[in-house]
Amino acid sequence: MLTLHVGKNSIALAAHAALEEAGCAYDVAWVDLAAGDQHGAAYQALNPKGRVPTLITPEGPLTEVVAILEWIAATQAPHLMPDTPWHAAKAREMMLYVAATMHVAHAHRFRGHRWTDDADAQAALTAHVPQAMAACAAHVEGQLTGDWVGDAFCVADLHLWTVARWLPGDGVAMDGYPKLRALCDRVAARPAVARVVKLHG
Amino acid sequence: MLTLHVGKNSIALAAHAALEEAGCAYDVAWVDLAAGDQHGAAYQALNPKGRVPTLITPEGPLTEVVAILEWIAATQAPHLMPDTPWHAAKAREMMLYVAATMHVAHAHRFRGHRWTDDADAQAALTAHVPQAMAACAAHVEGQLTGDWVGDAFCVADLHLWTVARWLPGDGVAMDGYPKLRALCDRVAARPAVARVVKLHG
Repeated sequence: MLTLHVGKNSIALAAHAALEEAGCAYDVAWVDLAAGDQHGAAYQALNPKGRVPTLITPEGPLTEVVAILEWIAATQAPHLMPDTPWHAAKAREMMLYVAATMHVAHAHRFRGHRWTDDADAQAALTAHVPQAMAACAAHVEGQLTGDWVGDAFCVADLHLWTVARWLPGDGVAMDGYPKLRALCDRVAARPAVARVVKLHG
Repeated sequence: MLTLHVGKNSIALAAHAALEEAGCAYDVAWVDLAAGDQHGAAYQALNPKGRVPTLITPEGPLTEVVAILEWIAATQAPHLMPDTPWHAAKAREMMLYVAATMHVAHAHRFRGHRWTDDADAQAALTAHVPQAMAACAAHVEGQLTGDWVGDAFCVADLHLWTVARWLPGDGVAMDGYPKLRALCDRVAARPAVARVVKLHG
């Protein structure tokens, strides 16, 4: 049995939705991020980075949401990744942008301590988040050409949707990004995704 | 013919080394990052993010180094990615950590403007880089169990090596990380890698 360690409405939501889309059997272990459970000894034994998600597979724990998404597709639901090298590459291109640029831009709102101990500098990072996230949304908007990131729904859509859900809270109105908003609406309307969103409250 | 757009000693070095390891025909287009070529109209038409690398493939331009590394393996040199879902997942887990945490930690040294316009805050980010990069090196050191990231040499080794090369310049001595240093020495000793390093000067 697979067990996914999840924080509510964190990036782990993408992996949670992917498991539900895959239709495979899995357990959820909720990690209370506000209480700091991710820094406890039990969780750190699974994931020394102290982040979510972690997926417990028959072969061991796996971390990093993009690696988890691809593993779920490869082993449980091949239709969740494109089946040609080019389309898989374009899905990865979006996931790497979301992971290494857009998610990072968001993280400067609450997690400035990763990059400085200076309280004033942390406040400056927080203040810049709306501008940085708007730039990310604009970049993504310029990349979208159809209903999905690629030519069919795949895990890259779940990943992008999860981070795009944070835009309003980061001070960025979705109105300026109609293609991204429509993609997010399509993802949210999927029955498997709606079931998982309900659990995240 | 493939064309790789490369900045000297940037993260593009990983993709450059992967093409040389693959043994396929390719051209290199040098991008002068110090002169700001990446922000010029010609380059932005290929990669609106204004970053390197960009790989021009028969199907179009591809960005994000991890997406490029996987595409090179998938289409030119399958031995450069593990051939089981689990080992591929573990290679991706390392590449995602390097892309979204370690490379990001390094970028705070010179590219604080991505996250704040405040000059004092940018200086605070730069000052914190040795501490953040040392923590990344320690994490990686704890993950390494053999000669390579996985059970055989793959593109994840090239990616990790490229970012680990920046550690001394970021104020982190390699002495504290003997497994990481040995892995980097093994990568650097590969004939294909040595040929590419020479071109980067």
